[in-house]
Amino acid sequence: MPEAFIDPASVAVVGASADQAKWGHWLAVGALKGKERRDVWLVNRSGSELLGEPTYRSVSELPGTPDLLVLCVPAGHVRTVVAEALERGTRAFLAITAGVDDQDELAALLTQHGARMLGPNSLGMYDASTDLQLAWGHFTPGRLAIVSQSGQLGSEIANLGARQGLGVSRFYSVGNQLDLNAADLLEGLVDDPQTNAVAVYLESFADGARLVRALRALRAAGKPTLLLTTGASEGSKRLAQSHTGSMTSTLDVVDAACRAAGALRVATPSDLVATARYLDAADLPQGRRIAVVSDSGGQGGIAADVAASLGLVTPVFSDELQAQLARLLPTGAALANPVDLAGAGEADLEVYAAITELLAGSGEVDAVLLTGYLGCYGEDTPSIADDELAVVDRLGKLSEASHVPLVVHSMSDSSPAVDRMWEHHIPAYEGVELALGALARAAELAQAPGRDLAVADAAPMPRVPGYWQARHQLLDLGVRLPEARLINERTDLAEALAALRTPLVLKAGWLEHKSEHGGIRIGVRSLAEAEAAYDDMVGRLGPGDYVLEEQDTRDGVVEMLIGGRVDRDFGPTVTVGLGGVQAELWRDVHLELAPVDRETATAMVARLRAKALLDGWRGAPAVDTDALVDMVVSVSQIVAGSPAISDLEINPVRVAPGGALAVDALVLPLADGGA
Amino acid sequence: MPEAFIDPASVAVVGASADQAKWGHWLAVGALKGKERRDVWLVNRSGSELLGEPTYRSVSELPGTPDLLVLCVPAGHVRTVVAEALERGTRAFLAITAGVDDQDELAALLTQHGARMLGPNSLGMYDASTDLQLAWGHFTPGRLAIVSQSGQLGSEIANLGARQGLGVSRFYSVGNQLDLNAADLLEGLVDDPQTNAVAVYLESFADGARLVRALRALRAAGKPTLLLTTGASEGSKRLAQSHTGSMTSTLDVVDAACRAAGALRVATPSDLVATARYLDAADLPQGRRIAVVSDSGGQGGIAADVAASLGLVTPVFSDELQAQLARLLPTGAALANPVDLAGAGEADLEVYAAITELLAGSGEVDAVLLTGYLGCYGEDTPSIADDELAVVDRLGKLSEASHVPLVVHSMSDSSPAVDRMWEHHIPAYEGVELALGALARAAELAQAPGRDLAVADAAPMPRVPGYWQARHQLLDLGVRLPEARLINERTDLAEALAALRTPLVLKAGWLEHKSEHGGIRIGVRSLAEAEAAYDDMVGRLGPGDYVLEEQDTRDGVVEMLIGGRVDRDFGPTVTVGLGGVQAELWRDVHLELAPVDRETATAMVARLRAKALLDGWRGAPAVDTDALVDMVVSVSQIVAGSPAISDLEINPVRVAPGGALAVDALVLPLADGGA
Repeated sequence: MPEAFIDPASVAVVGASADQAKWGHWLAVGALKGKERRDVWLVNRSGSELLGEPTYRSVSELPGTPDLLVLCVPAGHVRTVVAEALERGTRAFLAITAGVDDQDELAALLTQHGARMLGPNSLGMYDASTDLQLAWGHFTPGRLAIVSQSGQLGSEIANLGARQGLGVSRFYSVGNQLDLNAADLLEGLVDDPQTNAVAVYLESFADGARLVRALRALRAAGKPTLLLTTGASEGSKRLAQSHTGSMTSTLDVVDAACRAAGALRVATPSDLVATARYLDAADLPQGRRIAVVSDSGGQGGIAADVAASLGLVTPVFSDELQAQLARLLPTGAALANPVDLAGAGEADLEVYAAITELLAGSGEVDAVLLTGYLGCYGEDTPSIADDELAVVDRLGKLSEASHVPLVVHSMSDSSPAVDRMWEHHIPAYEGVELALGALARAAELAQAPGRDLAVADAAPMPRVPGYWQARHQLLDLGVRLPEARLINERTDLAEALAALRTPLVLKAGWLEHKSEHGGIRIGVRSLAEAEAAYDDMVGRLGPGDYVLEEQDTRDGVVEMLIGGRVDRDFGPTVTVGLGGVQAELWRDVHLELAPVDRETATAMVARLRAKALLDGWRGAPAVDTDALVDMVVSVSQIVAGSPAISDLEINPVRVAPGGALAVDALVLPLADGGA
Repeated sequence: MPEAFIDPASVAVVGASADQAKWGHWLAVGALKGKERRDVWLVNRSGSELLGEPTYRSVSELPGTPDLLVLCVPAGHVRTVVAEALERGTRAFLAITAGVDDQDELAALLTQHGARMLGPNSLGMYDASTDLQLAWGHFTPGRLAIVSQSGQLGSEIANLGARQGLGVSRFYSVGNQLDLNAADLLEGLVDDPQTNAVAVYLESFADGARLVRALRALRAAGKPTLLLTTGASEGSKRLAQSHTGSMTSTLDVVDAACRAAGALRVATPSDLVATARYLDAADLPQGRRIAVVSDSGGQGGIAADVAASLGLVTPVFSDELQAQLARLLPTGAALANPVDLAGAGEADLEVYAAITELLAGSGEVDAVLLTGYLGCYGEDTPSIADDELAVVDRLGKLSEASHVPLVVHSMSDSSPAVDRMWEHHIPAYEGVELALGALARAAELAQAPGRDLAVADAAPMPRVPGYWQARHQLLDLGVRLPEARLINERTDLAEALAALRTPLVLKAGWLEHKSEHGGIRIGVRSLAEAEAAYDDMVGRLGPGDYVLEEQDTRDGVVEMLIGGRVDRDFGPTVTVGLGGVQAELWRDVHLELAPVDRETATAMVARLRAKALLDGWRGAPAVDTDALVDMVVSVSQIVAGSPAISDLEINPVRVAPGGALAVDALVLPLADGGA
């Protein structure tokens, strides 16, 4: 990021306007907020005074060279103003103007002069630490950086945050990304001392690999990113293509990219802000086990249900811990988790702190949720307001000393006690789903700290013309397949029969979709059957590289699939899931960016519902999941390390107690060639 | 509901206290709010003045007989005070006191005097229309009635509502339901002119059938119910059992009961309040098709994704409608749905109304969502505040004239323009998920208006001792099964073989779990095989009612299951879902209260993912779903009309293009006997 976009020595707003309803007005008002720190010049064709400041009729009339120039002029004037400013020596532009034609030409002009531009069609930018407010809207200083491909959505996040006490460190509306793009801006945030978390809205992910690196660098610098995007519905895909011409990315790939980068996708601005508020205050929980503590059985029950729906767990406490709780609580209190105080909190507010202390120190949970009336006592009963604040102070000290986060759902939204919680870095929310949603997302972030995507030194798989060659390559790269022989002539069959164990499968190896075209015959048990099958296929499909392969007849097999695919935006990916004929019905698959190591591959398999089949369904013996995991790792390395390949699909992988066998494989070259 | 609980002529608060932190203080303060309307007497052992009122030392000292008596005394005194009041003639009690022993004895005392009680362990009650506030907390008058088994959760709903402009008509915390229970209170709301929707929290559903009738009567009276409950997680089940000793109901049964009653289960108090606000303002949408209109592509895309996640649909508009939209919008606007105004709203606020008018009148959607900046214009730019209000007025008129609801997500939470929207009965929310969540739940309510659960005049199925008898009964009741013969002796086999088509299945008909106990043999093709199978089974299992049955060997079969079950709380239910060995893995089932008609049964099947299999998966022919639907209807009638049966499970039902066959059935009698 050029310094002129962070703390320019001078700013000129071209198109400054007296009309409140015009962008040129907002930009001028905002720019003037920094006039103690820098020269601010307003340019307006009328040349009359504006907002108590003189204006200039053109850039050439300015008393100096603007370090940063803001364009609020009609689209047709952009080119002229930019040329004039380049002439004077300006090298940084913020283009608010929308509908600019000939953007390529404009880009070339900028490059030629070594100049940079944010926009056009930007809603603006803001930097809290340098009094730089060059944007529509209101900003509250804080620690969340916002980078948005939709200015208004960025603005929604900033507004929601401001209403909830969460401020902004920097704000960039990237507009059409003619020059500076989201990755540039994100890289520029890595070393920003003001920023402790980042909100990003993007609807296209060109150069996804660079974005992943930028997000990972941010996470490594202690600034996790929360990502909003679209593409979960036909409606949003249609809209993105209609208004930016861009294809949205498949969300399971975006999610995989986030996990690899240590970032997290969220669904809405409200979810983003609730999570960012959490991150601004508290540590990440080290796992998904929470204690639920309530002064109402109803609220405790609702909290447990909401927690479960978010993937959080409320484990049953140990007998020892329950006995300790019992010493603090009256008969009738629930002790197993959720804890129901059964009136104890009302009788003695200190109980909230005592219970929290016990649970946070128990080692049995990764976070504690208090849900209910705490935060309302003082509001409803002023005589005990100080007692309540004292308890909150005690909770604050506890929370500071512990690595087990405390989160509160309070029936009050903004009492002095709730404010005091936030002062003590205890996130407190008006809705239990907000509190638990933020906690669950924080746990998700903790689980995905980002990982290395370096490719192992495996030999790349070349572009191969058919199944026979693919078999060889896969075997070389560690993927197990059944024994087979190449059959080019009818006379090859006898030797193959002698070498292989029946039953056998005859395959037309060059076909992409063998079974759909009658290019596969199973259950071949004799030379006569093999010859008949061969004659039939050659008659229909012609000569070619046929493959005679041993048929997998093992018992207790679970059919899985493994796929490697190069995503348009994010590059190599690997998928594992349930295979077989109903695979598409259940869509029980999990995808990660490739390559993956054994640990990641194991976690992928563990997320599948089909894991229950692998572990032995209804009394069946468990199959060799380790062998499946190894094959996932191999496929991920092949697709990541082989620039000539776009797709590698093994379906089915037959996993039995004795190992995993790939019994069909399809390899597709990259359309544009590759290495 | 006795009138004394609605508008008592006099109220006595026994245990009135000067201590702000005590319930007796809140109840006294609340009761005195009604002193213009009724006598309010405070009873306190000190006998000193309280809140500017005289107090009485005991009930017997009161100047008259209290119509309603509020108990805030220690648990040990309840019995004495009640007896004293009964003596004076009081017949209505509100018992706040918790921890009352010998509740049965207390109940008997009340019954003996024809008296009624709400509580004990109630947080209180409130009636806005009669200035009756006998509860902890603050209440804002309005049209939502609240009935809660957890006082504090009811209070949370009331507080959340009040902060968002939604008031309460009546509030009942039912406490331990010693006498008056939730169904009593709900029935009492049916004719309440103040109430237009009901919020209920229950964690146990004893006498569920009566509750369903009460909820249905409320819906029929135009007062839909939103239900909160727990039991979705192990944690909440544990908690409910620990603190009330009650088992939670299975949530799919609760949801089915809600559909039958025309009520809707929601997950959290916030969801409930967002939905109740919608119901308080707008009509139910007639379907799930919505138009999304935004002045930001980003916000429109997020809205489309959130809508899809909630089961709402954003259909592609017809060419004609898109052409009409194009006439109102600039080049570059998205027209297909979502609609992106592309700056048109900013240029001319009237565009919001013009677009909404067009869409609401198109017949192509059931509701319109505006998402984005509308509601902020006047706040940010006072010079156009009046223009914005005028547009909101126009939207209000449109909305009133149309049956297509308009819902707004505004980036402002409480601007004059947003307030004006609510005045015009246009629901407007700060978060897009709140707006769409409320709309989706309203659509869900519209889809389930409640239905008749009257049982058809079918002959009830008697308690039957085994499969052979069950087969006969099921055949009589219209369930299709394969041909079969009863085999009591080895010599019966020959005649059976002659009469039946092979292959055959031999079953040990009296076993509940035939295959687990080796009581089933498939693929019997000859007399010799039948004899061998019979000898083997008799050797292992002994003699009995064996059944030789034709094996279903049709091609293209989808294996489903149909179950009928009498739920502990809600009575007869019927389930349809994917059958076969992986049924429990995918849990692809749908349940309704029984009986169901063909329309409901068709809708049940349509909700299954397995519907894709029934419709013909990957080129397979469609199977006879009508026959499956018929069997669901039959099973639902059998279980609803047969008091002797607790469970009837048909798994699998083999559905082929040529019809559905029940190939195994299990019938269990009610444990306690039945008719």
